[in-house]
Amino acid sequence: MTSDTSAENSCPITYEELRDLEQDFEDAETEITRQHLALTKPLYEKREKTVSQIPNFWALVFEQAPPDVDQYIHPTDSAVFLSSLKKLTVSHFELENNPKGDPRSVAIKFEFDENEYFEDRVLEKKFWYRQSKDGRSGLVSEPVPIKWKEGKDLTEGILDLVAKVWQQDKSQANGDSSKPKKIETFTPDEKALKEKIAKTGLGGMSFFTWFGYRGPRVSEEESRLAIEKEREARRLRAEGKATKKDGEEEEEDDEDDEDESLALEIFPDGEELAVAISEDLWPNAIKYFTQGQEAAELSDLDFEELDEDEMEEDDEDDEENDNVQRPSKKQRT
Amino acid sequence: MTSDTSAENSCPITYEELRDLEQDFEDAETEITRQHLALTKPLYEKREKTVSQIPNFWALVFEQAPPDVDQYIHPTDSAVFLSSLKKLTVSHFELENNPKGDPRSVAIKFEFDENEYFEDRVLEKKFWYRQSKDGRSGLVSEPVPIKWKEGKDLTEGILDLVAKVWQQDKSQANGDSSKPKKIETFTPDEKALKEKIAKTGLGGMSFFTWFGYRGPRVSEEESRLAIEKEREARRLRAEGKATKKDGEEEEEDDEDDEDESLALEIFPDGEELAVAISEDLWPNAIKYFTQGQEAAELSDLDFEELDEDEMEEDDEDDEENDNVQRPSKKQRT
Repeated sequence: MTSDTSAENSCPITYEELRDLEQDFEDAETEITRQHLALTKPLYEKREKTVSQIPNFWALVFEQAPPDVDQYIHPTDSAVFLSSLKKLTVSHFELENNPKGDPRSVAIKFEFDENEYFEDRVLEKKFWYRQSKDGRSGLVSEPVPIKWKEGKDLTEGILDLVAKVWQQDKSQANGDSSKPKKIETFTPDEKALKEKIAKTGLGGMSFFTWFGYRGPRVSEEESRLAIEKEREARRLRAEGKATKKDGEEEEEDDEDDEDESLALEIFPDGEELAVAISEDLWPNAIKYFTQGQEAAELSDLDFEELDEDEMEEDDEDDEENDNVQRPSKKQRT
Repeated sequence: MTSDTSAENSCPITYEELRDLEQDFEDAETEITRQHLALTKPLYEKREKTVSQIPNFWALVFEQAPPDVDQYIHPTDSAVFLSSLKKLTVSHFELENNPKGDPRSVAIKFEFDENEYFEDRVLEKKFWYRQSKDGRSGLVSEPVPIKWKEGKDLTEGILDLVAKVWQQDKSQANGDSSKPKKIETFTPDEKALKEKIAKTGLGGMSFFTWFGYRGPRVSEEESRLAIEKEREARRLRAEGKATKKDGEEEEEDDEDDEDESLALEIFPDGEELAVAISEDLWPNAIKYFTQGQEAAELSDLDFEELDEDEMEEDDEDDEENDNVQRPSKKQRT
């Protein structure tokens, strides 16, 4: 048995069977995510109540963010957060009205105090989990415009331009928006956007350009049909009935077309960043915050005698990072 | 509000509150893991039935293992797997008799065909999730001896020695096994083990030395008491009653002692490897297997005309990596 690896005769298993099995696991994962969100909802509410009493909590979490997030936060972005970020909220909005909604769709909401950069008090970016007809899946979003104050646009006009192009797309032939964009058909605004993106260089852009991320052009309708079709094919296979493999043919067709949508994407890693915020920064916020506090304490120590008693040191008044009471110090009353 | 980061007066939150909140999240996580395991159990059984029909499935999964696992698999280990690994099973054994058991305890079982290296048909390594009195937690295990055939011991005697030392520990004063080991008190076997480990160099050891991993010396009793004590302290804090911070004092005490147990650990990354197998390789086995098949197909293609039709190519009989029927090829009858 072990040395016979030629499969044509010995192996009765097909790739479809393996793929269907994986899909079963993914369905279980989705179900578990629903239960997880229900179970932790009151905990997140309790956390919000607690951390809202810690000055600058969310800004300090972003300061200590893991590399997946941190790499996109430029010093000016950091300054905006430190001067005015009041609250971060991650919600799974498709579940709110429908218990069978997709828990992978996610909304990330930033709440700000009055600040010198923009007028908005709330910036919320929504991501819809969608599947395209060629079987790929991922997060799709819409540009969120920001009302910059005079001369303060951290994206240098590029976010406005993305929002404008998106509005044009919406008002045009609706059904066609998921067709591959060809460069010859670009509107003047699209051409301007493409040039602006090429000129800025992707690494050089503010975190706030992320609000312009759109992702793959997959409409709600396309996604619904693709999921239905796949489920049906899977059901037939589970019953032992063979199905046409047209999905694969379509995939090959698509590869021939040149899709220039990506040239209009100002934040190509937009999905990765959304996932890093919602699945790492958000659930582990206390951990990142505490790490930051500990690091700050350690660097304070450098300036002291290392064998001085920590209790005395705590009594000094120069602890600007001391956002939370030290455990060895105070008892609550 | 935003610029005031001096906390002594403004912040009513303590580190204990944050830590308790984190613990609440961890409890929720544990509960979700229980539900997850219950929900996916039938899927894992179905998967086992399917993959048992694919020749060399598990050996090929190990071939494609992620770096966390792959780095420990030497060419000879790989040869053992390819020639005789029949089945891998990960189970959460503490849940089997007790629905409130800890789902983080895990057993990893390898089943082998007759092979030239050892007599055993089954090697099962169990890991218990335990918490020590200084608040640290992790996986604890016991050495699993292997009946090597003459001259075939891939660990060069080191696994036998670890098992011997472990037996000696067990037959000695039971309560004391969790005390820090001091080098002056080493038995001759312990000294021999320490020397052997130092001489071999950690990178040079076979995957099978992992069966000798022991982890921190935390007894079941110590863990039970530590968890109880922590829960009680948390309960009191939740009711607004302050508790003594003796946990911290103990931690400091421990740091003063020099614990030489690590010098007797033949596989210091044993816990990381157990987690990588049980939480990545095991749930994602089909993905790794499929990736391997695809990579093999791609490298087959190098020898063909690239624009030749794939259908024709499939008809050839030289596909030694073709362990599963190609999707475009056959229909089940």
